[in-house]
Amino acid sequence: MRLDHIGVAVKNLDEAVKFYRDILGLELVKLEEVPEEKVRIAMFRVGDVYIELLQGTDPESAVSKFIEKRGEGIHHIAIHVDDVDAKTEELKSKGVTLTYDKPRAVSHGERKINFIHPKNTFGVLLEIMTRVEKK
Amino acid sequence: MRLDHIGVAVKNLDEAVKFYRDILGLELVKLEEVPEEKVRIAMFRVGDVYIELLQGTDPESAVSKFIEKRGEGIHHIAIHVDDVDAKTEELKSKGVTLTYDKPRAVSHGERKINFIHPKNTFGVLLEIMTRVEKK
Repeated sequence: MRLDHIGVAVKNLDEAVKFYRDILGLELVKLEEVPEEKVRIAMFRVGDVYIELLQGTDPESAVSKFIEKRGEGIHHIAIHVDDVDAKTEELKSKGVTLTYDKPRAVSHGERKINFIHPKNTFGVLLEIMTRVEKK
Repeated sequence: MRLDHIGVAVKNLDEAVKFYRDILGLELVKLEEVPEEKVRIAMFRVGDVYIELLQGTDPESAVSKFIEKRGEGIHHIAIHVDDVDAKTEELKSKGVTLTYDKPRAVSHGERKINFIHPKNTFGVLLEIMTRVEKK
């Protein structure tokens, strides 16, 4: 297992990008919309991992609801596993609650993801994910 | 710059360790008390970075106050920089607010740290730090 990224919920992606890129000096590697999760994201490389800023594109997105409830800030962390399907089954067998019964594909099938409920992790929304090799 | 660790505020370190080590399967590499920050910590390796669970050892610790206000969860992220003194000065010159005017040494001088105020980072308590080479 390795850390893949840290997700940060922000209200205004363009303003936040200015701080992380221009003031802090991180390398912006991707700006994209992820309709499956109703977010726009900006990915910054920090060594071998990423900081992912997320802005909800719909009031019903999980990110928008998070901001409404808790304000801007760190939303989730994502750990890469070799096989997110197997890890999902293993954790379910240990009594862990996950968002999806089976991992779902996002970003045009580039990634398969699931989330462990914060009640299991002492308050951390923990994404488990596998980056899928392109055929 | 590279990500060093993610700090997670928990009420009961021993209980939280059971989830991260025994259920999730992360490698526990260190348990220690950091009196300068009034916390006990458990460090887990996830690839090249760490997840650091923190329990306050005093109601006045920043971690205890964070939990009282926001509940358990991700507390800060820490980015390693080559020279935290120089980075502190650079950020101050750009108008960024930091916790300490000069970085402070913690863990028996192993690390020098400072924190960027969440108002600058869109809600993220961002530690900047340098691991000091032992003489």
